[in-house]
This record gives sequence, structure tokens and C-alpha cells, in this order.
Amino acid sequence: MRSIGIGLAGLGNVGGEVARLLLAHREEFRRRLGAELRLAAVCDRRAPSRARRLRLPGSVKLKRRWQDLLRERSVEVVIELFGGAGPARELVLGALASGRHVVTANKMLLSRHWDEVFRAARRNNRQVFFEASVAGGIPILQAVREGLAANRIRSVLGIFNGTTNFILSEMARCGRTMAEALREAQRLGLAEKDPSLDLSGGDTAHKLSVIASLLAGRRFPAERIPCEGIERISPDDLRFAAAHLGRTVRLLGTLNLDWASDPVRSEAHVHPTLVPLQHPLANVHGSYNAVLVDTSSAGDLMFYGQGAGPGPAASAVLGDLLQVGRELLAASGREAARPRAALPSRPLSPAPESDAAFYLRLHLSDRPGVLAQVAGALGERGISIAQIHQDVPGASPRGGKGVPVMIVTHSAPAAAIRRAAAAIERLPASAGRPVCLRML
Amino acid sequence: MRSIGIGLAGLGNVGGEVARLLLAHREEFRRRLGAELRLAAVCDRRAPSRARRLRLPGSVKLKRRWQDLLRERSVEVVIELFGGAGPARELVLGALASGRHVVTANKMLLSRHWDEVFRAARRNNRQVFFEASVAGGIPILQAVREGLAANRIRSVLGIFNGTTNFILSEMARCGRTMAEALREAQRLGLAEKDPSLDLSGGDTAHKLSVIASLLAGRRFPAERIPCEGIERISPDDLRFAAAHLGRTVRLLGTLNLDWASDPVRSEAHVHPTLVPLQHPLANVHGSYNAVLVDTSSAGDLMFYGQGAGPGPAASAVLGDLLQVGRELLAASGREAARPRAALPSRPLSPAPESDAAFYLRLHLSDRPGVLAQVAGALGERGISIAQIHQDVPGASPRGGKGVPVMIVTHSAPAAAIRRAAAAIERLPASAGRPVCLRML
Repeated sequence: MRSIGIGLAGLGNVGGEVARLLLAHREEFRRRLGAELRLAAVCDRRAPSRARRLRLPGSVKLKRRWQDLLRERSVEVVIELFGGAGPARELVLGALASGRHVVTANKMLLSRHWDEVFRAARRNNRQVFFEASVAGGIPILQAVREGLAANRIRSVLGIFNGTTNFILSEMARCGRTMAEALREAQRLGLAEKDPSLDLSGGDTAHKLSVIASLLAGRRFPAERIPCEGIERISPDDLRFAAAHLGRTVRLLGTLNLDWASDPVRSEAHVHPTLVPLQHPLANVHGSYNAVLVDTSSAGDLMFYGQGAGPGPAASAVLGDLLQVGRELLAASGREAARPRAALPSRPLSPAPESDAAFYLRLHLSDRPGVLAQVAGALGERGISIAQIHQDVPGASPRGGKGVPVMIVTHSAPAAAIRRAAAAIERLPASAGRPVCLRML
Repeated sequence: MRSIGIGLAGLGNVGGEVARLLLAHREEFRRRLGAELRLAAVCDRRAPSRARRLRLPGSVKLKRRWQDLLRERSVEVVIELFGGAGPARELVLGALASGRHVVTANKMLLSRHWDEVFRAARRNNRQVFFEASVAGGIPILQAVREGLAANRIRSVLGIFNGTTNFILSEMARCGRTMAEALREAQRLGLAEKDPSLDLSGGDTAHKLSVIASLLAGRRFPAERIPCEGIERISPDDLRFAAAHLGRTVRLLGTLNLDWASDPVRSEAHVHPTLVPLQHPLANVHGSYNAVLVDTSSAGDLMFYGQGAGPGPAASAVLGDLLQVGRELLAASGREAARPRAALPSRPLSPAPESDAAFYLRLHLSDRPGVLAQVAGALGERGISIAQIHQDVPGASPRGGKGVPVMIVTHSAPAAAIRRAAAAIERLPASAGRPVCLRML
């Protein structure tokens, strides 16, 4: 029976689970694929101790440097789980150049180096699979690329970050502050010690960038995605939203594509957003992810599941690995790999953030005439007010830093709202930067 | 550029949409696949008139008999959209025997003839794709077969029939009777003239049979799936469930697999089920489908989307067709097709319906001692009562046929409940067959 040598780079939580499943389900994968998936070598700075903890059999070669992993001739597929864009990039490019297929979970790498990675793959006639880079265990990329291949994808909207979704869920459920909910997430292993990439929306932007790049067939840089995090959301916002607006806050990544225009106009952004409580995305709690996809023929679909954690990520990595295995079996004795489902490269032109109703939380000193100034700042920019609440019961004045005032606008251009919020911040009566949330 | 000849059998709503999209998006599919998908021939009893309505170009050959479609030498892939298990079976077997790949949406065919069809496919080294046979536009089969291939699928639970879900949603939303909601569904084109296969749960059982066969790698007959329809659900049930139990009714197909036993124990059934209002499946309204999948590594996932209609079905058919196209390109000049992701065939042993709490609606004549007899019928079988409601406000006595009594039991063996219901029906005071709903 044919045996396929696997080189696994990175033995952290996900890598460890991949190794464990490869060994534990060897028989099952063999029956399923008609070939053996053999863990030939692992690479990790702490290889010996981690290999011991995982009880890797002696036949698995241990390497500390990725260069040595690539020197292992029996390795036909490299699984890259280093993360980040440094050695991971060199490893992936080196693997492709030396004729290996690659499976990676690395959204940052793909977001930054998409064109370089896929040029190298094409040049060497090798494949790069990356299901685990977006939405963990949910096979959303395969769905978009294959199952829904006959459709034009009109929009992708979703919760792509489990850490922030856990924090927002906890804040809404128990009235906890951001800091308390974050500590709880860290205690449960759902947030890293330095959670800034999650909280800032940067992780969501990387994932959105991967999806947009896949749909465009070329790099869609994360820097082109305006991105706002949840750092400034307070329990007041969640309380007010639930009581007065029937809504809750979700950190959403949005990608809208207008296929009727040429080049295709693309609106992409990451924002904390007020979502109606009956909306499916409001009912995604804890560290789950959910992605809504609007398509030309299949209509709207939702995919929901665990967005992070060793099990879901390993499921995606191994799903990709089984696909690579089938590629290798099909290509046995031939040089050419099978053509992949890929959208032909086409340029996307960035479109501005679309109109929406907005929620503003202001902190104002309690002086006569202040509300008139605020209303003026909005009115001047053509923004009309749908609701205004001062003296909100339960809202905390935050140590004398002014009185919270909640404003809900009618639909208006997002740019105008953001300019108005900046103008309000500059008012002498302002006691801090307004919080500004899109309404879905 | 390579051109792939398509033979399309069946020009009804779905077939018409497939033809339309093949022609309208020809350029896009060509760019995407690197080959042309050419509609070479269509087969339909009413081919000329339907072809005219669809404005098929003159180059598309029109056939009235499937035998003539197979005589068309340029046809490399047959899309079977006849439906039913008569000519569809002969066409599919004939297509495989003559070396064509097959794409089909035919759940009844697969449910009845799985082994025969896939034996023929293996013998002729050809593929059968059938994404459109289950859950319309949702790429659930690909997810189970490929994206989640590294997992053991522990359960599949879902709403697989849009017609009955529309009817149950309408009954709950507007208090309509079954007959009224059915007429509305028919008016909207969501139910067929003869809706019995939908209402009876038979269509759901066929779909569950396809999923179970895919997971077992061998035929899992629909006849092995106990199946109950929604025909006897009344607005009283929905009203009572919402007011007293915080639940609504959904027609669910359930498949539980116990991989720890050998052979694998499988519990499969189709039942109208009381689902808590906060449960994601209770929030699937109208003609949508949703499938919950519980997996060993990726955890629980949900897939949601339009389960029927020409657009979603055509999306699934064309997604399959693009995959077949890639197979054909990869196999060019070789005899062998690429090995498919398939679970190795393994026997499933049927397990009985698992324990659950149940809801019973009885119609009893209003005589002394009747409730004692009912309680006795339950108690004798070890079933204890959690709630009992007589004189339910708003419940209609249905033309003097006794008084409705609603009973909610504690968890009990399903077989005991069904035996108790039969015993209650035989009581002299009984005025009709009890309605019996599982609680999720």
C-alpha cells in the first residue's frame, strides 16, 4: 500500500492534536484513503519534550529547524502550524519549491503573502490547502470554492473570532465588564495572554482577507479592510441595546461584492455591530463562529460551528490532508496535479462602507446647550436622529466623566457618521471619544 | 480548449434552471474550470416545447427518450433530473455502463438502489455525484464526505423538507389549520399537487437514507427508518406547545451513530418533534432547511439554507458538475478516475428509538374515571406524567369528538410510549388516535 510521508511543523495545541489524531486514527484514515498517512517528521523548537509528551513513536524524526524538515526526503506534504508570517513563510515557500504540497492554518501568512505563496504553488504545480485558517472546524472555504462554485458570492457576513464573541456574550449575559470577561476567557484558554489581535478586530480582518483573496483569485490585503475592535464596548452599551433597541453587539466581518460592476466593487470592513436579538448571528453565543453567505442561485446560507480550539482546527487540517492524499494518489506516476477549483484572478475595486443606521454613545458634561451642539454636529452632516436617551437608567457615569447619552440615527453614510463623531469629540463639553456602532 | 459534453435529462423547473445557468454563465465556468461545459443534448418527453421556452440554441440536440441521450457520443456527463426510481434508474445505470459520469438530484433512486448504482460506478470507474439530493443548495454532503472527513459523524439531526417546515411555520405564526397552510404552500409553488410524500415524512426518510448510506458506504434502506408525518398536527398542538412548553413543532430526521459498538449501532427516525423556541432548529422558518452535525473533533456544526427550489437545486447540480469537470481534466488520457472520498463500507446495526420525554394530545369523552384509566395505561408501562392539562384554553373540541387533554411525560422508552398511546386509543372513552410528539 502507498504510504504518504507527512512533515508536521509546529507541535503546539493544534499540532499536537493533529499528531494525536494521525496516530490514533491511522487505521481508519488508511481504510478511507486507500493509502497510509505516515507522520514522518515533526519540527518544533521544543521537539524532544513535546514529542515525549505526545508519545510519538520512535519512527517519527524530530527536527528543531524547518530547514531540516525539508531535508527529510520522505516528506511529501508539509503541514505548517508555526503561525505568524516569519519562518512560516520561508517554510511554505521552501516546501512548495521542493515539490511538497502544503496544508496551513495560517491566516496571517495568507493575508500578507497570498500572491507570493500561490505563484510558488502554480510554478511548482503543487497545492496549498488552508481550510483551518478561517472559521476553525467549519468547512466554509471548501463550500465557497467547490459546493457553491456555480454561484456568484454576493456577500459574506459573519462572526470569525471566537474570543471576542465569547467576551461579548459574557458581557451581555452577566453584565460583566470587558476586563472581567477577558480574564474569564483567558482562564478558559479562549484568549491569549496578549489578546490585542483578537480584540482589535485584526484577526477577523485577516480571515476576511483570506476569503476575499480566495474570491478574487489574488491578494486582498487586510490593510484595505477598515477595522474597529471591541475594546471600547461597555456593559452600558449592551444593556441599552437589549432594553431599548432589542439588539446585542457582535463583532462582524463584512464583505459585499457587486458583480454587476467592472471591476467588481468590494466593500469590506470589520466592526462591532448592533444585531437584532432574533437575527441568527445574535444567537451565536460563546466561542462559536457563524458565517452567512449570500449567493446568486443557492440564496442565503449559514454555516455555524466552533471557530477555534485544537479539535476543530485539527479537523480542518486533516480534512485538507485527506484531500491532498487523494491528489497524490490521483497524480501517482504523473507530474501534473489536478486543476483546482479557483476563481480566475480578477481585480476588485474598493467601495466605501455602505450607509447604515448608527448607535452613538457620547459622554457629555451636563451643561445647558450641549445637546443642541451635538444635534448640530449631526444635522450639519445630513444625519437625522431617530432616538435620543439621556439619563439612561443603569448607565454608569464612569467616575464623573460626564453623562452618557445614547443616540440612534436614521440610515446615513458611514463616513458622515464617523466625521460627526469626531466633531462631537472635539466639543468642549465632550468627555471622551464617542462609541459608534453600525446597526445591521 | 477542452470541451466537456453534457447530457441533461429532465427539463422541469430544476433542469430548466440548470440549462439556463449553463448557457448564461458559460464564459465564467470556462474561465473557472479551464474547459468548456457544453450542453450537448437534453432529454425530456416535452423536449421541443420546453427547449423553445428556454431558448436553447440549435446546437443542443433534443431527445425524447433517454436511450437516445446515451447514443449521443459527445455526452461525457449525464445530469439525471427525471426524479423517481423508474426510467431514472435505467438512465443512470446505462450512463455508467457506457462510461459517463453522473450527477443526480434523485434521493428516491439513491435510497432504493444505492448498492446497485455504486457497484456500477465502481465497475466502470466512474463517479456519481448527488449533492442536490439532500438539503437543496446546502453543500452538506460534501462537508460530511470531505471537509469533515477526519471526524466520526456522531449524529445528524435536521429539517430536510421545506414544504412541511413552511406549513408548520405558517400554522404556528397565524394559527392556520394544516389544510389552510398546505393550500398556501401550493399557491406559492412550495408544495406539489399531491403533497403526501412530503407530509408523511417519506421525503425526509429518503434524504436521511442517502446520508446514512453515504456514512455507511452501503445501502441504508428508507424502510428501515421509522417515519411519522405531520398530517395530524393541529393548531391546538402548536398553541399549547408555545404557551405551556415554550416549544414549537418541527419535522426532524434523526441519525445517531454509536461508533464505539461493532457493528456500529444506528438510530434513525423521522418524527414531528417539539423543539424549544430558543433552539436553532425552532428558528428555521418557512421553506428553509437546517442540518445539525455532531462530530468527534470539529464539535457540533449547523448548516442552514434553502432546501428546495430551482435555484438552490441547480446550484448543487452545477457545483457537482464543476467537480466532475475537474475529474475529467485530471483523468484526461488516463483510464482511471481519481479515488473518491468514501467511507469504507461497514455494516450498521439498527438501534431502537431512544428514550425521550413525550407530548400526548388525547381526545376523551368527558366521563368520570377516564383520566384514571389514562394515567393507568401510562403507569403500567412505567411512564410518569410531568404535566397534564385538561380544559386547555383555546383548544377546540373538534365537533363534539371529546375533550382535548394534553399530557407531557418524563423521559421514557419511545416504544413504551407508543404502546401506551395505542392502549389509550382502545379505551371506550377515547375519541380518536392520540397525537404523540417527541420532545427534543
